[in-house]
Amino acid sequence: MTLAHGTATQAAGELHDHGPADGFWDFARPAGGPVAGIAEFRHWFARQARAHRYAVDRVPFSALSGWHFDADGDLVHESGGFFAISGLRVRTDFRRPRAWAQPVIVQPEIGLLGILVKRFDGVPHLLMQAKMEPGNVNTLQLSPTVQATRSNYTGVHRGRRVPYVEYFMGPRRGTVLADSLQSEQGWWFLHKRNRNMVVETRDEVPLLDGFSWLTLAQLGELLTTDNLVNMDSRTVLSTLACGEPAPGLVDTVADPYRRAALRSLAPRYGSVHSLHEVLRRLTDSRARHELVQRRVPLRDVLDEGLWRRTETGIARPDGRHFEVIGVDVRAERREVGRWSQPLVAPVAGLSGLFVKRIDGVLHLLLEARVEAGTLNVCEYAPSVQCSPSHQGAGERPELLDRLLSAPRERIRYDAVQSEEGGRFHHAVTRNLIVEADDAFAAVEPEGYCWVTLHQAQALLRHSNYLNVQARTLIACLQLGLF
Amino acid sequence: MTLAHGTATQAAGELHDHGPADGFWDFARPAGGPVAGIAEFRHWFARQARAHRYAVDRVPFSALSGWHFDADGDLVHESGGFFAISGLRVRTDFRRPRAWAQPVIVQPEIGLLGILVKRFDGVPHLLMQAKMEPGNVNTLQLSPTVQATRSNYTGVHRGRRVPYVEYFMGPRRGTVLADSLQSEQGWWFLHKRNRNMVVETRDEVPLLDGFSWLTLAQLGELLTTDNLVNMDSRTVLSTLACGEPAPGLVDTVADPYRRAALRSLAPRYGSVHSLHEVLRRLTDSRARHELVQRRVPLRDVLDEGLWRRTETGIARPDGRHFEVIGVDVRAERREVGRWSQPLVAPVAGLSGLFVKRIDGVLHLLLEARVEAGTLNVCEYAPSVQCSPSHQGAGERPELLDRLLSAPRERIRYDAVQSEEGGRFHHAVTRNLIVEADDAFAAVEPEGYCWVTLHQAQALLRHSNYLNVQARTLIACLQLGLF
Repeated sequence: MTLAHGTATQAAGELHDHGPADGFWDFARPAGGPVAGIAEFRHWFARQARAHRYAVDRVPFSALSGWHFDADGDLVHESGGFFAISGLRVRTDFRRPRAWAQPVIVQPEIGLLGILVKRFDGVPHLLMQAKMEPGNVNTLQLSPTVQATRSNYTGVHRGRRVPYVEYFMGPRRGTVLADSLQSEQGWWFLHKRNRNMVVETRDEVPLLDGFSWLTLAQLGELLTTDNLVNMDSRTVLSTLACGEPAPGLVDTVADPYRRAALRSLAPRYGSVHSLHEVLRRLTDSRARHELVQRRVPLRDVLDEGLWRRTETGIARPDGRHFEVIGVDVRAERREVGRWSQPLVAPVAGLSGLFVKRIDGVLHLLLEARVEAGTLNVCEYAPSVQCSPSHQGAGERPELLDRLLSAPRERIRYDAVQSEEGGRFHHAVTRNLIVEADDAFAAVEPEGYCWVTLHQAQALLRHSNYLNVQARTLIACLQLGLF
Repeated sequence: MTLAHGTATQAAGELHDHGPADGFWDFARPAGGPVAGIAEFRHWFARQARAHRYAVDRVPFSALSGWHFDADGDLVHESGGFFAISGLRVRTDFRRPRAWAQPVIVQPEIGLLGILVKRFDGVPHLLMQAKMEPGNVNTLQLSPTVQATRSNYTGVHRGRRVPYVEYFMGPRRGTVLADSLQSEQGWWFLHKRNRNMVVETRDEVPLLDGFSWLTLAQLGELLTTDNLVNMDSRTVLSTLACGEPAPGLVDTVADPYRRAALRSLAPRYGSVHSLHEVLRRLTDSRARHELVQRRVPLRDVLDEGLWRRTETGIARPDGRHFEVIGVDVRAERREVGRWSQPLVAPVAGLSGLFVKRIDGVLHLLLEARVEAGTLNVCEYAPSVQCSPSHQGAGERPELLDRLLSAPRERIRYDAVQSEEGGRFHHAVTRNLIVEADDAFAAVEPEGYCWVTLHQAQALLRHSNYLNVQARTLIACLQLGLF
């Protein structure tokens, strides 16, 4: 196969006319940062975990303080803020014509997920937070510097001020390296998106308790640990275009997989499709598929009988998809010390990405995928995504068996990662990156597209092109190269 | 002011790695196309107008064949297709906190607007159609080659096949020069978007009655005529990135306004902001503003008393915004010979664009603007846009007086253009481009942004960055340069 070749300023470089990402790849320099190594970080993180007294108990909906079912049967907060559990009626012809109604999380306001960057001895470090969320399987995970709903920073829930938020807005803001709105899980949220920001500062930054500076290489290593780097961190990390490694660096890499992945970061090594074509295919899928969404009262969903509400949960009798539950939370180190809230408890998920060396350049197989709550019909998703709606017999994704039967030496990444613990209860997804063998066709089925890492980066400067599952895999792949 | 300078391949060039737009600016060559000149075109168009026997009569809703008010009070078609007049409840803090409910057109499916391009003697010609729409003030306007709702080409309304559609999809498709989803009027539509395509073919193309080949220069001239080039044509034309005029061409232009406009098409002449910053500001506005939308039964809107429904119309007693009416249509040359349908009849609008020569490069002043039915909070709009909701006393846009009091020599464009005649009845908007004087601040108020033409082109390769009013003005400005 012959690849189309771009110039360095095309595609990935488009929005980097001020070169904000200079030096991210210059990791040969000795790291002189505040954290000496991963071992030290792990000790610190374990101490943080011990310092958090924290209890989460499942309670009946009637015990949720501040929450009630309104006239529509929606589960809402008395402030009118936060989020609501409402109903969504959907009709689509994706895969096959079908229509259904389901509970859905409605949260129209746009939250802020921000990571602060600062160079120590020239090496960029990212300020990460040990943060507990009520739905986390393991209490504490590593979150972005700032992870705030609009309610958080406008004070709707009367909590403490969000630390470091001044670096992301207002006169003290640093250099903006990335700033885009990105979607969240389309099967659980209606039109949800968050603002993903990376900001670099040259100011002195006070290091508060619960925060730690980490390099991209350290984060790449931590991403191989199950359920440590939280979903919000992963999506922000995916939007941080790190620029291109120097040709000199690429050429010295002996491992052909790693070399192909590094080449995938630079337009000069070419790509199967132009970015024009990658976008055209997504536009085509968006125009070709029907997706009719209508928010309806949750009562209407229950009236149809497939979903049932008890005192303690809203679920389907067959146990598919997810359950809505209520939890009571007592914690010392949140903005407020005690609260209760609903959470969505989904069945476990699987995200799989096939990658393939084509002409020496690593390509990622993405699928333009319609989900119930997607804002603009579809977004690029991983090659395989077992969402709760595809667990039934006869609905196994075509590529799933190939993914799960891949020989061990072709598995390039395999870890379990958590979905957002502020909305989801013990929601875990196995993330797999598998290198396709030569028998794997380079020509994609309709709706799929091979893209390079630099094309993924170019798409991530805009909103709603890659879904959150794809962004997790891209963050894991990319940070694993540092 | 010093401008940031890009390279030719940055920004505007990003998606042109296959150079599909080559030669659009090479208009020095003699046009050897099928239409000798504008005079001939006007004769042809007048003949087309005479050949159309066509009557549109306002009728009561009860006389609309195939349409009825459903249990929600929504005005719907019996097929479940086409579109519906439903209700929309909105809450936003744009300009000032407010909440309201209004009728809205709901049409979730994505229509196709396509212009076919073919070179005659090397000069690109665009295939345009003389098409009547029931809401047009003057019966016939110039539309894209293909202007089809999804119902049109999937046959929901049992009409004739759409001519030339095979050049835009399927095996006969030509080279895709532009393909993106673009929004329509946010005050009248909920989340509406159409697919805008420009396709170049090398095939022999049969010229059907009612169609005509025109050059960009000819279309630029026709855009100075009131109500001739329809809204669908203007939006597709805005997405056709014509590339850059050669430096040799730019340098020979004596008129400083025209020279600045031509320089605005090429990144090498610089821009006040990087494209990164233009996008960042839009992201910031999207995250900062609240826009909560909820489709509700039209009955709920009427129940609130501000909107009233009679046998012949749905309107406000104060006459503001728009009225929903019904029309009966008899025509010989549509896909079907007779039909009836609802139309939205708005009050007249005004769109105004301030442009300014900054360091010899023309910049356009856009505002990130929230509208009731916008898909993603806000899009860039013209400097001034008097939408139906801003006609009240005390609600005059700040820049409106400056626009309307501009001395004649600073008015660079002034024509009345029609909104889509398939949905809107006699909906006309005055479009003004005014060159700002030196007293006009180069530093924008919050929410506004100076952009160049090449940056606008780069944004138009994506969806939902520029609203339909801004796209009309950009098409008029840009095509006026040929």
